[in-house]
Amino acid sequence: MGSKRSDRREFLKRGVALAGGVTLGAVAKSASGQLEGPEAFIQGTDELVGYGKRSSYVTSVRIPHGGRASPDTFGLDFHIAAPLQDSVGVITPSSLHYMGTTRGSFVPDIDPEKHRLMIHGMVDNPLVFTMEELKRLPSVTRMHFIECAGNRANRRHRTVQETHGMTSCAEWTGVLLSTLLKEAGVQDGGDWIVAEGVENVVGASSIHMAKAMDDCIVCYGMNGEAVRPQQGFPLRLLVPGFEGILNVKWLRRIKVVDQFYMTYNDYGHLRQDSDDAALGMQIGPKSVITYPSGGQQLPGRGFYEVSGLAWSGGGAVARVEVTTDGGRSWVDAEIRGTAHPMAHTRFTFNWEWDGQECELQSRCTDVLGSVQPSRVQAIEYWTQRGQPARVKGQDNSIQPWRVESDGSVHNAIS
Amino acid sequence: MGSKRSDRREFLKRGVALAGGVTLGAVAKSASGQLEGPEAFIQGTDELVGYGKRSSYVTSVRIPHGGRASPDTFGLDFHIAAPLQDSVGVITPSSLHYMGTTRGSFVPDIDPEKHRLMIHGMVDNPLVFTMEELKRLPSVTRMHFIECAGNRANRRHRTVQETHGMTSCAEWTGVLLSTLLKEAGVQDGGDWIVAEGVENVVGASSIHMAKAMDDCIVCYGMNGEAVRPQQGFPLRLLVPGFEGILNVKWLRRIKVVDQFYMTYNDYGHLRQDSDDAALGMQIGPKSVITYPSGGQQLPGRGFYEVSGLAWSGGGAVARVEVTTDGGRSWVDAEIRGTAHPMAHTRFTFNWEWDGQECELQSRCTDVLGSVQPSRVQAIEYWTQRGQPARVKGQDNSIQPWRVESDGSVHNAIS
Repeated sequence: MGSKRSDRREFLKRGVALAGGVTLGAVAKSASGQLEGPEAFIQGTDELVGYGKRSSYVTSVRIPHGGRASPDTFGLDFHIAAPLQDSVGVITPSSLHYMGTTRGSFVPDIDPEKHRLMIHGMVDNPLVFTMEELKRLPSVTRMHFIECAGNRANRRHRTVQETHGMTSCAEWTGVLLSTLLKEAGVQDGGDWIVAEGVENVVGASSIHMAKAMDDCIVCYGMNGEAVRPQQGFPLRLLVPGFEGILNVKWLRRIKVVDQFYMTYNDYGHLRQDSDDAALGMQIGPKSVITYPSGGQQLPGRGFYEVSGLAWSGGGAVARVEVTTDGGRSWVDAEIRGTAHPMAHTRFTFNWEWDGQECELQSRCTDVLGSVQPSRVQAIEYWTQRGQPARVKGQDNSIQPWRVESDGSVHNAIS
Repeated sequence: MGSKRSDRREFLKRGVALAGGVTLGAVAKSASGQLEGPEAFIQGTDELVGYGKRSSYVTSVRIPHGGRASPDTFGLDFHIAAPLQDSVGVITPSSLHYMGTTRGSFVPDIDPEKHRLMIHGMVDNPLVFTMEELKRLPSVTRMHFIECAGNRANRRHRTVQETHGMTSCAEWTGVLLSTLLKEAGVQDGGDWIVAEGVENVVGASSIHMAKAMDDCIVCYGMNGEAVRPQQGFPLRLLVPGFEGILNVKWLRRIKVVDQFYMTYNDYGHLRQDSDDAALGMQIGPKSVITYPSGGQQLPGRGFYEVSGLAWSGGGAVARVEVTTDGGRSWVDAEIRGTAHPMAHTRFTFNWEWDGQECELQSRCTDVLGSVQPSRVQAIEYWTQRGQPARVKGQDNSIQPWRVESDGSVHNAIS
């Protein structure tokens, strides 16, 4: 075994043998440097008083995903991934929330005063709402992740941003779609909706009425302020736990229809069977270790808090297990804070690294009892469905990270 | 009575008589305007791909509190208040988190590589941590509010930003202070700590060891990224539920001491008695309606979701009541999402306004059973303590908003 478990009690009992031992040597230096006061100040301009900024020392940014984005593109795949390797807690800052679109890097610049949401199709009372009218209605506030169905790792990826960066989590506020649909009065046979955004190429997604009436949210708020333009300002549809593409940005129309319609947004799915379409949209239980992860460097043997994110479209995360020996033995990680339904959940694991090469993995189980599969299991699943030797559709398989004896961390997908 | 309660079921049953009735007339206009596509786009520059921005149509900003801030000040009181009137959910965006300091608008521009945290004083093993070392230790992630003890309303205030804007709530990530203190080994008699930040005038706060060992957090993470400079980058002490001034920003030293020390940070408190100091620091149960609130305008009679924030230093919010008749009758509001301990909690109340003048108030009860006092009760409390006719210390009294028959909303403090 390349490593062993160290729980918090052990960590504390050993005291100076761990962090204390690491840091005691630095006490002598304490009389100089930062302990004596700052060398520079940031001036409080009117702009910074009004709306603050992050430190110039913090440079974490989103990056193009799988070569599918460049600011110059327009009318093309545009996918940018969140820097999960730098994440703390469960909220993704709105400025770093992943973004996926097939319409390029330009996003609609919408005047909220002019924006309207129409509910139409197979309803008794077609409705059009202004933003102000929507904000007068009963609201909900919930933590939810959104993940692109194309968020999958391969052996060429180096970092967790490349393998898993197409997922993010925010506090969303808005009106339950069911509130609007009940106002409009859904007619018999209105079993599906098509949700459409304001886009230069018309984007639309088909969603089953059972989901639409359950927990979908027409969101105007995100992380305590208005939804950001890249996330759909002024209005985004949240379809908790379902594939990212269904969470229509710049939402302007919801049409109640009698069947699944294959739309431009289904380009990657090509599901012509309505049952298959309805069932294939939910994100499976998934997790990934964000520290230590590919491209990071451990400074040396000793104590580390292994940290990661887990989530599931099936509900709340119930359990996360971690292995440090490539899957031979698994132990429970700690879940930090509240495990909200269909939300990123932070897990941690106290680990003492003995300096030997080892392989870290995490495995998520959700409240339904669904367990995140190994990569071998995922490939077998798809092989049985006529897609040999690769994971098609969603890939929620376990991510392995190899820690070398020099402390470097690498993607261990073979 | 100027108003009556309308619960969600009634709202839905009445259907088009409420929001539907308001909006049906707009359907005819649906063929034009925003439903037909956006007029403008935001270009996806490298900068925006890396780190997104809010819409230029969203202009909500922090403002000086009580005339105590100007970007030109240096070495003076500098307090800027969060725009609670625009808040959604419970998270305050980091860019809009309130800030209070007595050292001007300039904030330290700290290089995290050079920053150190020292634990010293009455400990067996004085410790100095680098940021990297702190991040290797077991962490917690928790939602907590911070509120300035000076967050109090008076009759001259117009908006909820002026009356209550010196409170904010974020998801904080860091190491429990108890983890560090146990590593250092607190000596017998070390009953207090003094926490000190990197500041041009030395800021420090005394905190009792019981609180320090309970739930204080040495935070490096805020809302999913690094703590912002205005909130203490790279390190801030969180003292959940206690007065804002104790939540030391730009934290560099924690000294274990034998008694309460009156420091510069206690300038407004002048507590020389240690028991009084320890007991006076916890924020009482408090709430405020953010919509409708002072300065806002209701477009007309009909359905509204009344919305607000509640919090308490004593634990989670257990109950929020709302009155629409100036306090003669109270009904329970709905708590939205999870009521986390010592965190802002969003409450809502479905209300049909009949167009008559009325007065809205909210009242918070926490898990300890403590109830937010009326303004009269708060003044009585301080009168009995030799401070007649005004609320001294913290003011957690109920905020009244008067809705005029023309839909304008006003601060009703007399």
